[in-house]
Amino acid sequence: MKDVARLAGVSPMTVSRVVSGEPGVAPATAAKVGQAVRALGYQRNDNARHLRRKSPGTATIGLLVDDLANPFYARMARSVEDEAHRRGCLVLIGSTHDEPRREREVVAAFTARQVDGLILVPTAAGHGFLRGPAHAGTPVVCVDRPAPGLAVDTVTVDNRAGARRAVTHLLAHGHTRVAYLGDRVGIWTQGQRCAGYLDALTARGIPEDPALIRHGLRTGDQARAALAGLRALPDPPTALFTSNDLITLGVLDDLDHPAPLAVVGFDDLPLAERLTPPLTVISQDPLALGGAAAGLLFSRIAGDTSAPRSVVLETRLVERGSGELRRA
Amino acid sequence: MKDVARLAGVSPMTVSRVVSGEPGVAPATAAKVGQAVRALGYQRNDNARHLRRKSPGTATIGLLVDDLANPFYARMARSVEDEAHRRGCLVLIGSTHDEPRREREVVAAFTARQVDGLILVPTAAGHGFLRGPAHAGTPVVCVDRPAPGLAVDTVTVDNRAGARRAVTHLLAHGHTRVAYLGDRVGIWTQGQRCAGYLDALTARGIPEDPALIRHGLRTGDQARAALAGLRALPDPPTALFTSNDLITLGVLDDLDHPAPLAVVGFDDLPLAERLTPPLTVISQDPLALGGAAAGLLFSRIAGDTSAPRSVVLETRLVERGSGELRRA
Repeated sequence: MKDVARLAGVSPMTVSRVVSGEPGVAPATAAKVGQAVRALGYQRNDNARHLRRKSPGTATIGLLVDDLANPFYARMARSVEDEAHRRGCLVLIGSTHDEPRREREVVAAFTARQVDGLILVPTAAGHGFLRGPAHAGTPVVCVDRPAPGLAVDTVTVDNRAGARRAVTHLLAHGHTRVAYLGDRVGIWTQGQRCAGYLDALTARGIPEDPALIRHGLRTGDQARAALAGLRALPDPPTALFTSNDLITLGVLDDLDHPAPLAVVGFDDLPLAERLTPPLTVISQDPLALGGAAAGLLFSRIAGDTSAPRSVVLETRLVERGSGELRRA
Repeated sequence: MKDVARLAGVSPMTVSRVVSGEPGVAPATAAKVGQAVRALGYQRNDNARHLRRKSPGTATIGLLVDDLANPFYARMARSVEDEAHRRGCLVLIGSTHDEPRREREVVAAFTARQVDGLILVPTAAGHGFLRGPAHAGTPVVCVDRPAPGLAVDTVTVDNRAGARRAVTHLLAHGHTRVAYLGDRVGIWTQGQRCAGYLDALTARGIPEDPALIRHGLRTGDQARAALAGLRALPDPPTALFTSNDLITLGVLDDLDHPAPLAVVGFDDLPLAERLTPPLTVISQDPLALGGAAAGLLFSRIAGDTSAPRSVVLETRLVERGSGELRRA
């Protein structure tokens, strides 16, 4: 702990807070601590790993994301790969497409290749199977979402606080009819973001209106159709909170509408600053998520057997224009 | 074969179809066969693989791209992973960052894991090492670019024809001073695109002006600086051909200029249609590139020993506005 604090140039207390996943540490500081942990953890490996693991391992880890073609997960994967490469380790990669069956298949295939550990963006299904004998002893870190029924290290952003902030921002610009457009509410991030939306309304004493809440939007087209339905309401919304980037993309055509709705989207998009109006978003950092998950995994692989940790990274409100449109 | 069929609980015919990479086998069945192959293969490997690999292999392929965080390569990777998954096969992934040393390191690590084959976006360095004893017998498919000094299956787009079309399009809108902004010309795609630029000028009898040709732009900032230099010329260009998406992103600020230059970019960008003016591009399909490369690789793994093939996919000109600005 002292070595880490010295290397990172922070107090041991700060190291303790980062390692135990407490929020409120500045991201830059957390990153420095993470680097120091990993740097020291690595050296320890070379001598001590045989003691614990009995075998030197395959120097391969598995990474299973929702969809590798999604730029968010691609950047996360790149960050995991960089961390692995620094340690002479390779990455097996797979996509679940949010299908529990494919998730199980790929995890089984990873385990059959004797991966040293697994970083997982879990589907919404139960994950008790990861406690079974086939997987016992393989460290698992969940990233982006926790895995239901599995107590392992988890790295997420504070989705609920981010969503609350987005909606509070819209309310502060005079809107009282704010719609929520989200994917399946059973997906953990979506549930959290919907809860944050409701938090913001409650804090302002605005009652929840089910007519303004749309779940289960899986494509841009579905989001576009949902928005058309909202605009046709007798008392339509004047602002939107869109709960992922696919949904945000689906409602962008609306910016051309003669009476555009205010929009804050969760997740940033490339070129968002060049739209008309530029898009206001809640931004999270996939490189930091991937890096933190890899850091945790390699410390487990190195023999860390402490209780599971939950690392929560902050999000950032990026004000660009679409979220600052006042109610007409 | 019979042992595998018995262990997997399927017919020898099914095993044969899975092993030879034929489509149409249910993923769950393919996975079972894959597991059985590996379970038996692991044992056989240790003794018999030196003979040459009639052995069933590891059901793992390696994919090495330039940078996984680049959405173009991320989509290519997703397509390779889908093809592999259909065949009960896993994908080891890596990024070269266009560094020959990292490329060699990762290829060596892939080979040490006994991958059944390798899909490679090669760096500009020599690739004779892939003919060496460490790699002999491992099929390699190059995608996006050929590998200098290596005669293997290759999947590319027709970069030269695409670039020629982009520049011809600008010339057809009255421009005679068209600048070329590209990355290192030693990168094969960049060399091809620069050749296509020159083809278009030659066809119109316009002499090449070295002052309008800028190579070696590695970042958006460098592209922005190069453009500022071009604008400061006594006889500045009225149109730009930008030779990759990073460079295109770097010059987008120029669209806000009181006298914007016409622009055609190579590679499409998300939200390009929502810019002002919307961006005209030469578009290529990374999913098709990845799918074609995977198809070739799996046919090699299945035993195809015919002469190396070169698959060239077409590009598409997408006219949206920025490339149709006429010379003032």
